[in-house]
Amino acid sequence: MIKLPEKKDGAQILSITAKNTVFNQEEVECVDELWEEYVTQGSDKSGYYFLVDKEDDHVLGYSCYGPRSLTSGTFDLYWIAVDPTIHRGGVGRKLLTASEEAILKLGGRLIVLETSGLPVYEPTRKFYLATGYTLEATLKDFYSDGDDLVIFTKHL
Amino acid sequence: MIKLPEKKDGAQILSITAKNTVFNQEEVECVDELWEEYVTQGSDKSGYYFLVDKEDDHVLGYSCYGPRSLTSGTFDLYWIAVDPTIHRGGVGRKLLTASEEAILKLGGRLIVLETSGLPVYEPTRKFYLATGYTLEATLKDFYSDGDDLVIFTKHL
Repeated sequence: MIKLPEKKDGAQILSITAKNTVFNQEEVECVDELWEEYVTQGSDKSGYYFLVDKEDDHVLGYSCYGPRSLTSGTFDLYWIAVDPTIHRGGVGRKLLTASEEAILKLGGRLIVLETSGLPVYEPTRKFYLATGYTLEATLKDFYSDGDDLVIFTKHL
Repeated sequence: MIKLPEKKDGAQILSITAKNTVFNQEEVECVDELWEEYVTQGSDKSGYYFLVDKEDDHVLGYSCYGPRSLTSGTFDLYWIAVDPTIHRGGVGRKLLTASEEAILKLGGRLIVLETSGLPVYEPTRKFYLATGYTLEATLKDFYSDGDDLVIFTKHL
């Protein structure tokens, strides 16, 4: 069930991130930083919003999003990650839909998603294309040489 | 002459930003925040680097740049602003060149510049095209309805 995370869910959120082999150490630490800001300052102040999909006390996946500064109604969807040890069963899609609805309620009109162009991210890119996102731009060698930035958008 | 700014230059940096009519209040406040982080934490910790073009004690313009997190060698050039009350005389171009050289020294290989697609920013876009930047992407309605994001890049 999609819920707002509780403070105690932080460990599972970080563990899911670490277990996803596509994320490197710096990315895992980045999620940790966003989560800490969210927990200590709240969403309004930190600018980070989290949702989890939970079965009893087990976090199956989470999303993190927030308003892009200097814009009016544009939101970044920073992360969607699902526990790789479970049968996925649409957890990512449920989190995506719930995040879009929450962003709409916050006055969002445009979602921007940034991901990598590496082959290992192909399922991710296909997922966003299949869920109504448009591939808007590719920035060659953005993350590092040979690792492009791919930007997807969806107008709500 | 291009220099590292001193703490006392902050007032002039903010005043130059405020006098540039293309920047709105939120953008002026954003520069203020970056400057405060730079002054209190330094470049390494804050991730923000500033350069100024100064004639005696008069700041003619400034630039602000820094490494993009989660990338290896990609730098954002956040701001270049020139005092609109002076004859420009290549201040912007000098700041741009000096920033590129500094980024190269910091290990940068790619510069990313984000600006607006509004008509009032046309001189800005022409300036970047004339200085070797490539228009890589346009994200429709990014800043607000009718105000696109335009992304320029330059490989160093």
